Amino acid sequence: MEGMTPLPAQTIEEALELMQDKKLTASDLASACLGNIKRLNPKLNAFITVQDSRARSVASTMIPASTPRATYADVLRGIPIAVKDLFDTAEIRTTVGTKFFADHIPDEDAFVVEKLKAAGAFIIGKTNTHEIALGVTGNNPHFGTARNPRDLTRIPGGSSSGSAIAVATGMALGALGTDTGGSIRIPASLCGVVGFKPTYGRVSLRGVFPLSWNLDHVGPLTRSVKDAALLLQAISSYDALDAASIKMLNGDYLGHLTDDISGKRIAFAVGEYIESADPEVLQAVRGAVKVFESMGCVIEEVGMDWLRDAASANKTMTQADGAAVHRNRLKEHPDWFGDDVRRRLQDGAKTTSTEYALARRTQAELKKRFELFFEAYDLLILPTTPIPAPTIEGHDAVEQAARLTRFTAPFNLAGLPALSIPCGFTSGGLPIGLQIVSRAWGDAKTLNAGYAFEQATEWHTRLPAI
Amino acid sequence: MEGMTPLPAQTIEEALELMQDKKLTASDLASACLGNIKRLNPKLNAFITVQDSRARSVASTMIPASTPRATYADVLRGIPIAVKDLFDTAEIRTTVGTKFFADHIPDEDAFVVEKLKAAGAFIIGKTNTHEIALGVTGNNPHFGTARNPRDLTRIPGGSSSGSAIAVATGMALGALGTDTGGSIRIPASLCGVVGFKPTYGRVSLRGVFPLSWNLDHVGPLTRSVKDAALLLQAISSYDALDAASIKMLNGDYLGHLTDDISGKRIAFAVGEYIESADPEVLQAVRGAVKVFESMGCVIEEVGMDWLRDAASANKTMTQADGAAVHRNRLKEHPDWFGDDVRRRLQDGAKTTSTEYALARRTQAELKKRFELFFEAYDLLILPTTPIPAPTIEGHDAVEQAARLTRFTAPFNLAGLPALSIPCGFTSGGLPIGLQIVSRAWGDAKTLNAGYAFEQATEWHTRLPAI
Repeated sequence: MEGMTPLPAQTIEEALELMQDKKLTASDLASACLGNIKRLNPKLNAFITVQDSRARSVASTMIPASTPRATYADVLRGIPIAVKDLFDTAEIRTTVGTKFFADHIPDEDAFVVEKLKAAGAFIIGKTNTHEIALGVTGNNPHFGTARNPRDLTRIPGGSSSGSAIAVATGMALGALGTDTGGSIRIPASLCGVVGFKPTYGRVSLRGVFPLSWNLDHVGPLTRSVKDAALLLQAISSYDALDAASIKMLNGDYLGHLTDDISGKRIAFAVGEYIESADPEVLQAVRGAVKVFESMGCVIEEVGMDWLRDAASANKTMTQADGAAVHRNRLKEHPDWFGDDVRRRLQDGAKTTSTEYALARRTQAELKKRFELFFEAYDLLILPTTPIPAPTIEGHDAVEQAARLTRFTAPFNLAGLPALSIPCGFTSGGLPIGLQIVSRAWGDAKTLNAGYAFEQATEWHTRLPAI
Repeated sequence: MEGMTPLPAQTIEEALELMQDKKLTASDLASACLGNIKRLNPKLNAFITVQDSRARSVASTMIPASTPRATYADVLRGIPIAVKDLFDTAEIRTTVGTKFFADHIPDEDAFVVEKLKAAGAFIIGKTNTHEIALGVTGNNPHFGTARNPRDLTRIPGGSSSGSAIAVATGMALGALGTDTGGSIRIPASLCGVVGFKPTYGRVSLRGVFPLSWNLDHVGPLTRSVKDAALLLQAISSYDALDAASIKMLNGDYLGHLTDDISGKRIAFAVGEYIESADPEVLQAVRGAVKVFESMGCVIEEVGMDWLRDAASANKTMTQADGAAVHRNRLKEHPDWFGDDVRRRLQDGAKTTSTEYALARRTQAELKKRFELFFEAYDLLILPTTPIPAPTIEGHDAVEQAARLTRFTAPFNLAGLPALSIPCGFTSGGLPIGLQIVSRAWGDAKTLNAGYAFEQATEWHTRLPAI
């Protein structure tokens, strides 16, 4: 990998191998990440809260697994993970990126934070987010403007802004984010890392501050698809106490990774809606299509202008759900919210139940449509975002949200597994994300397609030089 | 059976046996039902449209299955079925009980009407309904006041009013209804017949005029539980073109019917919310509990005051969804709606998206709660309605809806299979309904519990003498 921040291992996979061979300790990793945080966070604002002494202390107690891991019980032993500041962390401040919770310290870990710890990971800190996760810029008025490590004048994307920055710059080896309309995949795309939104119901939302009870998803941000599979292996589990959790057998995400995906039927989204994207983005995605073709996949171009209504329904529902979740805060202290978030919540509160019910109907129809769609195709590929990272200045945050979620939001509405992986760069050096989607519960299949692409390309190794 | 209307066979089961033994023809059944319709419909207003010559004509072509039915391909061969006027019927007027569709003649059958015909049934007519299915009285201002065959001064319950009356009085051997908050089970309870609302997603809604895209269910009304299983066997099927249809293996409802239910763990709902019911209703349900105990079931009393919030969320969503479905009609011709329906739609239109989103959240939490509940219990029993049939005069239709759906609506919200069967009579001779509920996709289990109860009792044979 070229020009990266200093880290003794570039991926979780590599770190686990080095630790198993006693060439690396969890303390080394903690020190390296904390060093990068210390050096870069003042510029990038990736973290709201850093766990310096606690992370070092936990890391120092970590004994690496000495034998090859026979089970997935400790897939993340000794790995420093950054967690978006929407996830409850026991005794660690959890702000939700908003003034309302600036001093909030939960008593318990979110279910997935518990799972991370059970898998041997330790928490390096809590990452910056667009306020209450309602937005994609990461320009947080309370905890600082998150910046794109490729170009400090540009947004990192959001709302899981800090998680993407941390992974891209070696402040953590992996991170958790949340995704309601693209909030994992968009910053992954704009920062040039891997982001995965699993199937709705696969990962528990308990202890994660809600934005939309119906569209929120939890997922990993990492430097490689295999690392995403490792993180998903650790966090995915049925949770009887989470209303969104669906009782399905947990997947074996690691066991399915293979670079042979010949014969897979891939739909390549085309049509006016998709082709409104930046030409450089489209070119990179067409390049990715060629890679899949060269691997023996069968590509078919499919017009998908109907994604437009899905994105629109997602927006309607996200704003209205956000207004429902934050109804008391919006009533009592509207001025505490940042300007863009307040506007969107106020818009959301004005949504009629008719608009909301019609958006729900669009959702039900979309799910059925994709059910049939994925009988004909194994995978769907399209750009993650229609544009590369825009500048921080000169754009309205609400308009940015509508624009950047165009290609990601439909898969929140449909609840489908959707992966963003790097697939190229603009002439100006900004990363471009490829989105890979599959049928509900096809998480392993989705990850595998990304894994195979990674084996055939080197885009994911071009991390920012900072 | 005592004091019934004249019919050559009292149940579908009996009719199929007689026809197989060449002791009865489909034409005999058509004639008997049409005779009962001619005599009783002017009083009871059960049918909006009767298929006299067409039913006779189709019946005359029916050749009974000559060998014992090895498969379920023609489980309803030669059986006259009444269909609620919400189901599209090709070339037969389908009014939805409203002035807006008074002259509407669909081109195609609803999916389940096709299935009925494919199973060998024929349509005897289209039954009266509370206007647009939004109400429980059956007092239809456009197509006449449906009346309870037990007492003509009382409501039959609704909205599937005519379907329940037709089955109770031998105008049909079975019927289809729809149920959004209790619209199959309530008229079944008040008229003293069997009504079953299957699991959400089990039966296609395609070609059935919607009231709520999220709460509508299609199901049978019959004279016995076995007949309900026969009808469900015919209509239940995955439908790739229906957004609500869920891809599950179709059940074998008939194959599971047995009178041995010893050892089943039954929750008997208690607490203030349930015990607000009429004392005679509670007494009859307690009698039913004793019957289950005598069959070797293990009964446990469970406080279920939390059903209140579920019923309330169902009401919020039903009205709002109705307002969304009928938004153009409500805008253009509000005066065309009956008074009570217009008031409810207008209330529905005023619902905020926050109220709606919170109702959806209640729904998600309720589903999860019942998922855990039905790990501890096989079955739940409670009254179907808190009161027996009230009088037509002297009550507000909107208040009646809130009152009569108290115990049924929670199971629309949860999407669970729920059966109403007769379990007694008031001192004044009005039927009382027992409701049996089970886990999602436990349709066969639910029906079997009702079947076993029927084998041990005779309430279902006491049809109205009229």
